[in-house]
Amino acid sequence: MVGRMTVIVAVPDTEMRDRLNPPPGVELVVWPLGAPPTGTRFDLLVLPYMIAAPALRALAGQKASYLQAQMLGFDGVAEHLPAGNVYCNAVDVHEAATGELALALILASQRGIPHFVTAARDGEWAHERYPGLAMQRVLVLGTGGVGRQVAQRLLPFDVDLVRIARSARVDDLGAVHGWDELETLLPQADIVVLAVPLDDSTRSLADDQFLAAMAPGSLLVNVARGPVVDTEALTRAVSAGRIRAALDVTDPEPLPSDHPLWTMPGVLISPHVGGDVGSMSRRFDRLLLEQIDLIASGKSPKNVVVRT
Amino acid sequence: MVGRMTVIVAVPDTEMRDRLNPPPGVELVVWPLGAPPTGTRFDLLVLPYMIAAPALRALAGQKASYLQAQMLGFDGVAEHLPAGNVYCNAVDVHEAATGELALALILASQRGIPHFVTAARDGEWAHERYPGLAMQRVLVLGTGGVGRQVAQRLLPFDVDLVRIARSARVDDLGAVHGWDELETLLPQADIVVLAVPLDDSTRSLADDQFLAAMAPGSLLVNVARGPVVDTEALTRAVSAGRIRAALDVTDPEPLPSDHPLWTMPGVLISPHVGGDVGSMSRRFDRLLLEQIDLIASGKSPKNVVVRT
Repeated sequence: MVGRMTVIVAVPDTEMRDRLNPPPGVELVVWPLGAPPTGTRFDLLVLPYMIAAPALRALAGQKASYLQAQMLGFDGVAEHLPAGNVYCNAVDVHEAATGELALALILASQRGIPHFVTAARDGEWAHERYPGLAMQRVLVLGTGGVGRQVAQRLLPFDVDLVRIARSARVDDLGAVHGWDELETLLPQADIVVLAVPLDDSTRSLADDQFLAAMAPGSLLVNVARGPVVDTEALTRAVSAGRIRAALDVTDPEPLPSDHPLWTMPGVLISPHVGGDVGSMSRRFDRLLLEQIDLIASGKSPKNVVVRT
Repeated sequence: MVGRMTVIVAVPDTEMRDRLNPPPGVELVVWPLGAPPTGTRFDLLVLPYMIAAPALRALAGQKASYLQAQMLGFDGVAEHLPAGNVYCNAVDVHEAATGELALALILASQRGIPHFVTAARDGEWAHERYPGLAMQRVLVLGTGGVGRQVAQRLLPFDVDLVRIARSARVDDLGAVHGWDELETLLPQADIVVLAVPLDDSTRSLADDQFLAAMAPGSLLVNVARGPVVDTEALTRAVSAGRIRAALDVTDPEPLPSDHPLWTMPGVLISPHVGGDVGSMSRRFDRLLLEQIDLIASGKSPKNVVVRT
């Protein structure tokens, strides 16, 4: 094909190499982050799935035109990525699965699933009435990829959906309230879903004051990043029986095995599996092949979020 | 108001009496099923929420123009209801909540929630990949009230939704396959949801042959009635590791505390809480006031399903 060149792509493991079916003219090389730099000039270097930003320092000395992450969030990347790198995040890979997990956490919490799972150990038919999701007011913070997927899945559940983003507007799903209305809207919600990126403006967003403003018995759901919630403040609020929590992310992560949140009534914790489902590889491969195609055509890949 | 007469309504407990706000001309009396017949002629007698059909024999000698059940399913009612009664079921009270629970069971099973709940006891960050719901083929058996609510809630989850009812047709949610296609469709499904009424044609529907036709690793969800599944056959299929199950109803019910299903991997059991949520009373009261209004106007109540 005119104008196409051979593209050298480094993938982090043999599993990805073996499952990919790249077009002609693409050379796949396995290079796991942390191995000594190869000297090879990669056109595209795929990073391992769940890596903490400081691990990116291992890229020092490794030459790559572009880096492709398998994660959506890129907090800390600008700080730790060695100079001369262009970092692309994984848009449209995890949002649907994370929105799906948010609904799993909400429905499980609102319908008593953790209680029934625990009672099953003793063969106990533990009939009890739970609030359910219908007719509840659900406040979703964030209207980005994940917030949008959460909102779309909530709609048929007959909820009173209230969305907040940086600035008020109207989109195809209805009204979006501005951040300045948070104080007013927080006490009126039965369920509060955090779906914001982690940055300086959202770090410790759910602090003592935020949690104190939530309605008694209401549910805090975190599918964003752990540090969006002040863990100590949350532990106090939950142990006082004021609110409930469903968390896919924690701070620190993993949550230490002796942390009191693990066994508190009203708390459901999943181990950061928001995007981690069977369909993840298919979705990521679709993005990767698209990026390879752009590079082979001499264009820039999409989703560039950090240049160092 | 012209044409309206005093209506005497018997309710099963003081809680219902106290929360109802009936219009003028309505007298509320508490009469729990099982108490000696009062001799009073009730215009409408409300039955307790979860009663087994044989308990209806306690109505012998009690005079009531109409009976209003709080349940949707009425299997066994015609057989056990004393002669001379007109029985109305509770349409539009439980379907939405049962559809909601079906999604809670499906999402919890597909995302590993029971595993995470169990691991939390030991403070274990048990990261593991689960199949998820997106891109799965979900077969919903039944297009009545509950089947419809399940289907509507599944749609935004990016599933391949396949519905089956007695006869093939097309409705506003798309194509409905006929019962004669069950044998072909069953092996292709990742998730099979039972949402059919219990009658002679559906009793033990999910028997050895049905379960053997399901795909390896697929999930059977029962939000219908316990006897729609052959419990012994299901126990065999699950213990062999062939399929998984999420059950809100069982046969017998409650499931005996020493039944092996309680602790088998891949099984999630909720104690028949499909319709039992915080909003149930509101929805039932709305129906009851509607029925009282019809009777006060000299009309027949709606949802008459059994006359003896």
